[in-house]
Amino acid sequence: MTDKGPITYRDAGVDIEAATAALSRAKDHIRATFTPGCLSNVGSFGGLFELPVGDWRRPVLVSSTDGVGTKVKVAAAAGRHDTVGQDLVNHCVNDILVQGARPLFFLDYLGTDRVDGEVFEALVRGLSIACRENGCALIGGETAEMPGVYARGEYDLVGTIIGIVERDRILDGSRVRPGDRILGLPSTGLHTNGYSLARKILFEREGLAADTRLDELGGTVGDALLAVHRSYLGDLGPLLDADLVHAMAHITGGGLVDNVPRVLPEGCAARIERGVLPVPPIFRLLAERGPVPVKECDRAFNMGVGMVVIVAADDEAAALERLPDAARIGEVVAGDRAVELI
Amino acid sequence: MTDKGPITYRDAGVDIEAATAALSRAKDHIRATFTPGCLSNVGSFGGLFELPVGDWRRPVLVSSTDGVGTKVKVAAAAGRHDTVGQDLVNHCVNDILVQGARPLFFLDYLGTDRVDGEVFEALVRGLSIACRENGCALIGGETAEMPGVYARGEYDLVGTIIGIVERDRILDGSRVRPGDRILGLPSTGLHTNGYSLARKILFEREGLAADTRLDELGGTVGDALLAVHRSYLGDLGPLLDADLVHAMAHITGGGLVDNVPRVLPEGCAARIERGVLPVPPIFRLLAERGPVPVKECDRAFNMGVGMVVIVAADDEAAALERLPDAARIGEVVAGDRAVELI
Repeated sequence: MTDKGPITYRDAGVDIEAATAALSRAKDHIRATFTPGCLSNVGSFGGLFELPVGDWRRPVLVSSTDGVGTKVKVAAAAGRHDTVGQDLVNHCVNDILVQGARPLFFLDYLGTDRVDGEVFEALVRGLSIACRENGCALIGGETAEMPGVYARGEYDLVGTIIGIVERDRILDGSRVRPGDRILGLPSTGLHTNGYSLARKILFEREGLAADTRLDELGGTVGDALLAVHRSYLGDLGPLLDADLVHAMAHITGGGLVDNVPRVLPEGCAARIERGVLPVPPIFRLLAERGPVPVKECDRAFNMGVGMVVIVAADDEAAALERLPDAARIGEVVAGDRAVELI
Repeated sequence: MTDKGPITYRDAGVDIEAATAALSRAKDHIRATFTPGCLSNVGSFGGLFELPVGDWRRPVLVSSTDGVGTKVKVAAAAGRHDTVGQDLVNHCVNDILVQGARPLFFLDYLGTDRVDGEVFEALVRGLSIACRENGCALIGGETAEMPGVYARGEYDLVGTIIGIVERDRILDGSRVRPGDRILGLPSTGLHTNGYSLARKILFEREGLAADTRLDELGGTVGDALLAVHRSYLGDLGPLLDADLVHAMAHITGGGLVDNVPRVLPEGCAARIERGVLPVPPIFRLLAERGPVPVKECDRAFNMGVGMVVIVAADDEAAALERLPDAARIGEVVAGDRAVELI
């Protein structure tokens, strides 16, 4: 570019007014998530949340930041952007739930090549739906147009959740003992992990498209890949209230093999059986079409188990009674913090 | 790609082990930021921070999430990645400071095409330096490799800060009155705004490089552009303690024109004089080389004013005494929440 006329911010690919207009349309979704602690309006410098300190003896804030990986590329391929917002919130809710915490509020960051108002609104709508479902206020956010950093037409969606737990109710795995039962809760699909591999297999190698219908999936590839990451708060909150939980592990990148050890204390290991819970058809498809070796599947995918709950053997029946679609998938044994998948 | 051999996660461009190794090297930096509230180790599912509730009557959490814009591309051009981490933390510290809050903890997210261990470590080192300087724990983070979402070799760095303020000490602009003085605190340069425009002018139009030395800058283009975003916590914390502040505005995207109105109540406007504080040479260079019209400079850049503090006329002397490099740049007048730059 050699033109030497006056230059504006918009010439450089940044359109503040377009971003402001998109934010305005999304405000209604955001306000619908507000809970009693929220003090601020949309658009102030920082989000304000008053802590209900009277309700807590020794409150500990539990926070986590994450994205949804290249699931955003599947969303783009399918032209459907509301579900990834739900994925992100539910993922973060689960990440702090495993330490015993309930969500207070959430902040999002959208980084993109160029803000598309409709995509932005769909993303915020999805974030808001999941925030409402989890009783979590969408208290802040930021949108950044970064031409050249993001590939053309691409975006990344990042979320941060802040939750709270009573200090003496923090779950850190220290209650886990050999003989404890390992329960699995079903995932809806890939949740938010393994998408780079899945896209490579299905879109690049197999030449499938998001709207390709496959009998073995009972629907389209896009629908199967975009199945919403499940929040386990509704199921596991009552279990926490009943003090039935020794530990929980959110099965994300690294699968059962890498995530379960994070809550195993010294002297404990886990023996877990594959395929006790129904394996969603998308995993069988990926394993076959890759082909992806079994041990690689174990690390790249959750293979149908989205959350693991460890309970005392004596509490197994009481826990399973409260968890209609859970099953015992293994048990804690003596060992060195490893997971044996059988 | 038509090869049908077995496929692994690494084949799809995701190398979990490389990311884990990079995280391991960064852990020492992170641990050095820990403050007494921190309960968790690096690498647990969520970050744990115990609130010192006994110290607070009605604590309000103030949070903000942000990035550093395409300053990351300047960092890449200069091959120097530690300063953008500092930029990000200081930016977020300022964003909640203007509501009266002090930082508690921080979480970062690095999204990238492919993790470069050295870059990652430099980023975390920068984050950690600034977290320590601001008494803020780096309590959590996430690294995501997203080939195809991020352009080749590019990354985005996102941060979320959580701070705290007593409810009756929240600054929301309601104390501002006509006649109040508007003080400006110097910026170090662009801080984290206007980089897409600056890069377009200096790198694309003018063909300069990060290591080009210019007499008017007294150094290289890269050094001027990478000047670290200043944290105003050290200067303004004591002013808050002394209850001398009616309002503060962090001058980010949109400049004085868009940011000062965010803290003006109904019935108030601002008259601010340009150029009272020294204008860093980088702004004159950008304005001349663009050329960038004055009114566009007002919105795209901070033009040397990184933070605005509004104080009662009677408190002006006491405030300026505590702020060695600040100056009165304007005053609050009767009006409709507009900023007149003269």
